[in-house]
Amino acid sequence: MAPQLDSFFKQVDTSADAFIERLRKAVAIPSISAEDARRPDVVRMGHFLADELKALGAEVELRPLGKEPHRPHLDLPPVVLGRYGNDKNKRTILVYGHYDVQPAEKSDGWATDPFTLTVDDKGRMFGRGSTDDKGPVLGWLNAIEAHQKAGVEFPVNLLMCFEGMEEYGSEGLDDLIREEAKKFFADADAVCISDNYWLGTEKPCLTYGLRGCNYYSVEVSGPGADLHSGVFGGQAHEPMTDLVQIMASLVDSKGNINIPGIKEQVAPVTADEEKLYDTIAFTMANLHESLGSTTTIHDETKPTLMARWRYPSLSLHGIEGAFSSPGAKTVIPAKVTGKFSIRTVPDMDIDTTNAAVYKYVEEQFAKLGSKNSMKVWAQHTGKWWVASPKHWNFAAAAKAVERVWGVAPDFTREGGSIPVTLTFEEATGKNVLLLPMGSSTDGAHSINEKLDKSNYIEGIKMLGAYLHYVAEEPQN
Amino acid sequence: MAPQLDSFFKQVDTSADAFIERLRKAVAIPSISAEDARRPDVVRMGHFLADELKALGAEVELRPLGKEPHRPHLDLPPVVLGRYGNDKNKRTILVYGHYDVQPAEKSDGWATDPFTLTVDDKGRMFGRGSTDDKGPVLGWLNAIEAHQKAGVEFPVNLLMCFEGMEEYGSEGLDDLIREEAKKFFADADAVCISDNYWLGTEKPCLTYGLRGCNYYSVEVSGPGADLHSGVFGGQAHEPMTDLVQIMASLVDSKGNINIPGIKEQVAPVTADEEKLYDTIAFTMANLHESLGSTTTIHDETKPTLMARWRYPSLSLHGIEGAFSSPGAKTVIPAKVTGKFSIRTVPDMDIDTTNAAVYKYVEEQFAKLGSKNSMKVWAQHTGKWWVASPKHWNFAAAAKAVERVWGVAPDFTREGGSIPVTLTFEEATGKNVLLLPMGSSTDGAHSINEKLDKSNYIEGIKMLGAYLHYVAEEPQN
Repeated sequence: MAPQLDSFFKQVDTSADAFIERLRKAVAIPSISAEDARRPDVVRMGHFLADELKALGAEVELRPLGKEPHRPHLDLPPVVLGRYGNDKNKRTILVYGHYDVQPAEKSDGWATDPFTLTVDDKGRMFGRGSTDDKGPVLGWLNAIEAHQKAGVEFPVNLLMCFEGMEEYGSEGLDDLIREEAKKFFADADAVCISDNYWLGTEKPCLTYGLRGCNYYSVEVSGPGADLHSGVFGGQAHEPMTDLVQIMASLVDSKGNINIPGIKEQVAPVTADEEKLYDTIAFTMANLHESLGSTTTIHDETKPTLMARWRYPSLSLHGIEGAFSSPGAKTVIPAKVTGKFSIRTVPDMDIDTTNAAVYKYVEEQFAKLGSKNSMKVWAQHTGKWWVASPKHWNFAAAAKAVERVWGVAPDFTREGGSIPVTLTFEEATGKNVLLLPMGSSTDGAHSINEKLDKSNYIEGIKMLGAYLHYVAEEPQN
Repeated sequence: MAPQLDSFFKQVDTSADAFIERLRKAVAIPSISAEDARRPDVVRMGHFLADELKALGAEVELRPLGKEPHRPHLDLPPVVLGRYGNDKNKRTILVYGHYDVQPAEKSDGWATDPFTLTVDDKGRMFGRGSTDDKGPVLGWLNAIEAHQKAGVEFPVNLLMCFEGMEEYGSEGLDDLIREEAKKFFADADAVCISDNYWLGTEKPCLTYGLRGCNYYSVEVSGPGADLHSGVFGGQAHEPMTDLVQIMASLVDSKGNINIPGIKEQVAPVTADEEKLYDTIAFTMANLHESLGSTTTIHDETKPTLMARWRYPSLSLHGIEGAFSSPGAKTVIPAKVTGKFSIRTVPDMDIDTTNAAVYKYVEEQFAKLGSKNSMKVWAQHTGKWWVASPKHWNFAAAAKAVERVWGVAPDFTREGGSIPVTLTFEEATGKNVLLLPMGSSTDGAHSINEKLDKSNYIEGIKMLGAYLHYVAEEPQN
């Protein structure tokens, strides 16, 4: 049966101005985690959240994380851990968000002051953090408040984990999640994260997969120091020549990865999975707009989305140690380090992939017959994540979307990674759902970041409705 | 007949301390052309030279060159034009040198103050500009003075052209040379430049060739802005992938240029030329020492020297627009520009070479089947220079070397370019000789630049002796 949500929804509409006012207060705190001078503002934002939660009757802890590893003069901002409700007869849902934001200066090109929430006549609410991720975080608080004001019983116990370092590497968070998995988070039946975006602007989505990323360096060295190409050109094996040969051997212009042992690991497309692609609201024009060009490899949406979501890709990022400035310099660089990464997908294994890359790069270098030296290593690796979109956590969210937006959501994956997703899944052993509030045009890390008023207000309804549906969804 | 040089040589030995003192005064003026704040010192150095020349009875002009093109707040330092002797019955020799120096700070790692000439117990005279090019420039003045003191008639009319911008692009000099070719330089019968180095440390050389340099850019662009490799990897043609394929197609690890139409232009080795290589004082150990490694393509000296001097080479310098810092950045660069250059040799033609490069790069790009855009162009081009080592100008210099050093000189070329050489040849139509004073270990642009006392004092004798031999050498 569909939960009786009408009075909650009505209250959200009634409180809309107050909820926008709450977002305005949050956006006004410039909680930029990357900037030393803003650290007190990040901490202030954590306290703001904690105070709002306490006022709503939640139990709150500000959990210190110690000193920042690479900036030991700074304390890490605290993680806000909250609990609202403690009824053994209800399901417990753990939600994650972050209260820090990307850097922003008016002079970067913002049309309005980035820390003054500015609503235009199309209902676009501009401000740094509006969509990433203060709007969604406040969505949970607003949902609590609307239940209270409407006199509707809150359907679940809500556990909250809001961090202040997401835009600067989530320092210290993984350890905390693992430590609290069997403590503060022990009761959680499922996890929900609202920190990504719709595929387009019209149709909501639920996200069930993320690619992983293995990032590699290939260093080629020879001469003792950079050389003059006039004096030495033609006499020595040049590290750049060798490196460029290796880099060119990795991938072709159509995006095909030439390294044996990569595509062999990729899980085959199932009929169920393939069906998910049929209805997705996505056009090549959407992609061309975000690319700023029509230089796509495929001409159709299905192979394009599959290339983004469920197949690995290899990108060449650049070369360290070579000449990289404008102008002309006749240098033979002595040591150059190529950087590339592979976006990984099910069922690719990190160690198997690393071994395949190392073996191939070593073979390619050996073929060159160069006297230079070569080293290849992984700078960092991160696993892909895929959840079952048929899990009751997703089924509940799909019902909430359909109830609020009147349309069944797309089931999407993303090409990038949100590492905390996997950490929650691995630490709690529970299903994790990505339930986005904002749309593809919000410009999370750009100038003029915004959240549409409709996405915020309907999003609050959606989060609340999700909690009702997830409270009663039968286990599968 | 050999000129009677004994009393001149004896006088040089007698005046050795005074000549070193003259070099000390010159080194003490920090005439760094690259640094704005040192411009008055560069001008002061020009006046010092002019005053010394006047004191020796030369006619001198300080020729202004106007404002510096890219630093219009600075006047270019003047060119010192000098004439010593105006006897219609004598040959007239035009000599070139420069009185500016490379930057130098004690803190760069100098063992002694770079602007205090410091002579160690091995006779090494350390100081910025000692060998590049104040020692050789003063060599001409010292030769005049020793003739005067010894009462030996000066054998030629000497025209001098000393500039103050050589280490910063010789701004304005080419125009002056072309303008004065039929005026101040009109009488010149031959040109001599002392601004390069012996191939090693033991055996003098005469240099008769330089490679040219064509410097190319290849730009590949696609997306409207840099992209996130997670979000976009696999869906778009990546400019880096295309560029690296193109760059890898240009040259192999053994230094072979793959572009059709390059090696076809190279002049065949003649028997006469090949003979010049047989006696050259050069070992692979010399090269390994200057490389700082043993990563040479060839194991023997003759193919190595030919690769440096008389064959083209292609070096990949780097990529502009890609990620070039330490660390990891998951960027797909939107526009990348690869830089490479070809060192050119006889009989390569600039236009033919450019056309071959453009055609090949365009073919390689077309093969990729990419939707990205590609442009290739020459940033700058410069012709090779080769003189006949059998010209009477060289024959005279060879006799001078043999008389002073007791050994026939090596006839060498250089892999790099000294553009003024070609300008003098083209503007005057006369033979140009490169007659080095310093040795390969002088470290012209490095810390601890030095000129050996023996190279300076014997070098003065050599320059003087050259003027005697060149005065009487029959035309050929």
